[in-house]
Amino acid sequence: MPRRIAIVGAHAAGVDAAAAARKTDRTAEITLITRQKQAGYSPCGIPFVLGGHIPSFDRLVVFSQSYFRMMKLNLMLETTVTSINTKDKTVRIQDQTGKQELLQYDSLIIATGANPFIPPIKGREKQGIQLFRTIEDGKKIDKAIKNGAKKAVVMGAGLIGIETAVALQERGLKTTVVELLPQILPTMLDGNMAKDVQEMLEQKGINIMISNGVEEFLGADRVTGIFAGGQQISADLIIAAFGVKANTELAKNAGIAIGETRGIKTNMRMETNVEGVYAAGDCAESINMVTQRPTLCQLGTTAVRQAKVAGINAAGGYAIFHGVLGSSVTKLFDMEIGVTGLTEFFARKAGLEIVVGKINSKTRPEYYPGGLDIKIKIVAEKESQKIIGVQIIGGEQVTQRINALSFAMQKQMTVRELAKADTAYAPPLNETWEPMVLAAEMALRKLR
Amino acid sequence: MPRRIAIVGAHAAGVDAAAAARKTDRTAEITLITRQKQAGYSPCGIPFVLGGHIPSFDRLVVFSQSYFRMMKLNLMLETTVTSINTKDKTVRIQDQTGKQELLQYDSLIIATGANPFIPPIKGREKQGIQLFRTIEDGKKIDKAIKNGAKKAVVMGAGLIGIETAVALQERGLKTTVVELLPQILPTMLDGNMAKDVQEMLEQKGINIMISNGVEEFLGADRVTGIFAGGQQISADLIIAAFGVKANTELAKNAGIAIGETRGIKTNMRMETNVEGVYAAGDCAESINMVTQRPTLCQLGTTAVRQAKVAGINAAGGYAIFHGVLGSSVTKLFDMEIGVTGLTEFFARKAGLEIVVGKINSKTRPEYYPGGLDIKIKIVAEKESQKIIGVQIIGGEQVTQRINALSFAMQKQMTVRELAKADTAYAPPLNETWEPMVLAAEMALRKLR
Repeated sequence: MPRRIAIVGAHAAGVDAAAAARKTDRTAEITLITRQKQAGYSPCGIPFVLGGHIPSFDRLVVFSQSYFRMMKLNLMLETTVTSINTKDKTVRIQDQTGKQELLQYDSLIIATGANPFIPPIKGREKQGIQLFRTIEDGKKIDKAIKNGAKKAVVMGAGLIGIETAVALQERGLKTTVVELLPQILPTMLDGNMAKDVQEMLEQKGINIMISNGVEEFLGADRVTGIFAGGQQISADLIIAAFGVKANTELAKNAGIAIGETRGIKTNMRMETNVEGVYAAGDCAESINMVTQRPTLCQLGTTAVRQAKVAGINAAGGYAIFHGVLGSSVTKLFDMEIGVTGLTEFFARKAGLEIVVGKINSKTRPEYYPGGLDIKIKIVAEKESQKIIGVQIIGGEQVTQRINALSFAMQKQMTVRELAKADTAYAPPLNETWEPMVLAAEMALRKLR
Repeated sequence: MPRRIAIVGAHAAGVDAAAAARKTDRTAEITLITRQKQAGYSPCGIPFVLGGHIPSFDRLVVFSQSYFRMMKLNLMLETTVTSINTKDKTVRIQDQTGKQELLQYDSLIIATGANPFIPPIKGREKQGIQLFRTIEDGKKIDKAIKNGAKKAVVMGAGLIGIETAVALQERGLKTTVVELLPQILPTMLDGNMAKDVQEMLEQKGINIMISNGVEEFLGADRVTGIFAGGQQISADLIIAAFGVKANTELAKNAGIAIGETRGIKTNMRMETNVEGVYAAGDCAESINMVTQRPTLCQLGTTAVRQAKVAGINAAGGYAIFHGVLGSSVTKLFDMEIGVTGLTEFFARKAGLEIVVGKINSKTRPEYYPGGLDIKIKIVAEKESQKIIGVQIIGGEQVTQRINALSFAMQKQMTVRELAKADTAYAPPLNETWEPMVLAAEMALRKLR
């Protein structure tokens, strides 16, 4: 009898797990179950459709129906998994009509993702607080703009909040971002780097209120504004980007262990405490490769890497997941921003003694027209001299520098080694002395 | 008495050595001696001035007179070092008027660079065969174009030859490249990668003749064309880009050891076989970090890295040079081309058993407009699975990928590890599955 693999969720993690399972076991019966109308799209692209960089929401569908057919994957849309019975190895599913059914599995992969949350703020029961997660959310916002929305408030200055604010500003809305913490992008950047990004956003016309929590949602039944920082802010669009919470209810109810990060706990094979049950994506914990402690790294890249491991193992293969550095980038207007490893803030919070190397440089030699500013901050652990984190802000060429330093960190490179590295240069493409190397040199000086 | 440091040569290697020496010893008397009219400019920029990307040759001067003053460096222009006496620790110098003088040193750095050569081809004594090395060479070519030159021949399809051909084509000249070997960029790329570049150049209108040596220089006293591939090719500009030879005469005559590569031999401190005499730049050997054998790596980046080490040591400090991977990039029209480590050809020549991973991918997700093609070829040693070389051709984002894989190689990363690496992604900036990771996966499959 063929192996039956059930996968709860059908976005990045679900589909990549299915693909890996299929490649591992050509005859397995693989079923993906999602409550959503559409499977296999890239939610990361939504702000960029909204901002007008991608022509339509439909383009975001990375895995088409024909992909599922080609890979012989059973896809059940608009179907909810209501419970998991790990003893009988069944999931209970319910379709739109309310009809329930039991689905038998040999291996199960939980890829339930994460959902946005709204903190317990006065008035949060009001209608019209717009979440930002699905294509449907994106389409609603797009429609509101087309219907004449002029003012927006984005609550939360994390990556999704800021990307959304940029998109709204690009669409011509007067946009305000409200953030409780004293900086934007608090999990991505240190305060001194975030300040540069904030200044750029403000120059582009976005109003940013840091150190200000949302105190109340205003309006009758329907929200018409917020109260924050001692003032009333009315808006046509009020978008909640406070953050996301791992969807772990289903797992929890089935007795599957949840970790200290509130994500599903797994071993190196992405297997939960229940044999044959795996987890991957935004609902699953990872081990941070620097701190060697659990972390919730809710990135698309992490999702697909975990999913590949879960899929291979669920199909009887063998693969392990080594953890995450949390390498992440974005582009806001003409600025690229990237991070890998720990920020200075989180390194200190983890109890590490560190040195920091910072450099302002250019992406091309002074004599070659068009070079753009680039700022690199390297965090190194003091005793080992190892690079443990990097933040980069620049006009171009940020992403692959983040990858370069991610590789360096994965291989335990020290700032001393980086200061000696062999790098590539040509006048149209780079400086002779690579800025990453100069930043390492700055860190090294503090270690002498 | 202050330490006296003499440096022969005043471009990338000479000036960077001087700067490092100055930072190491604030009171040293540092003298740079060059036979050229101008010091401290970037020869790498010359093709890009010629092509019109950099507004003037003067822009290429990276280190101005005021820099030399600020760093308290004595700069002797148009002055030739005629001999070195390592016993007395003196160099004999001669100025333009023929006046000679002895200069005493405590440490000496030889940064004499390399010069283009013309192979013993019939007629090479004729006037007008244009070399391509100095700003003066660049200016002569520029003048010839302004005076109406319409047709050019570039002899040699190495990096300088090809960059020059592109510049000439950009300036509207009908340009032919003649190369003895069966491919262009023979030390940079494998034949299968070079073919892509050749096709692109041909589409841009450059005529490329591979597997064809120059058999004769035609014309009376002055060259008016060449004979190659069974045909006469006449041209207004006949440019020799056969390659360069390390300038080691001065060192050789002083009894300083020359290595098997015909570059000056040094230890890890960039010190020659004579105590207190260092070498750096195009005249000096390096150790290849993959083969652990001497190599002549005549790149600007290598020059400045060697020079820094030589300068620190010459000034009484301590620094070592770990060798080179030969990371190198260029931009030809809209194509970026990069390499680090060994090509497949050179790996096999070094006796290594290898596997190759190749991938064609895009620089952005399918759904994000504007993504460009990128092709990555990874060479891994079979027993250790270590990455030993990478070639990348793409429309963008090549340079920092080369750096990323240079870091990986420096830290002995295997293709297995690269296939699991943590990479950064955002729709405007990269694919979810980083192409380098996919190429590693391809190599890994051949190892299973």
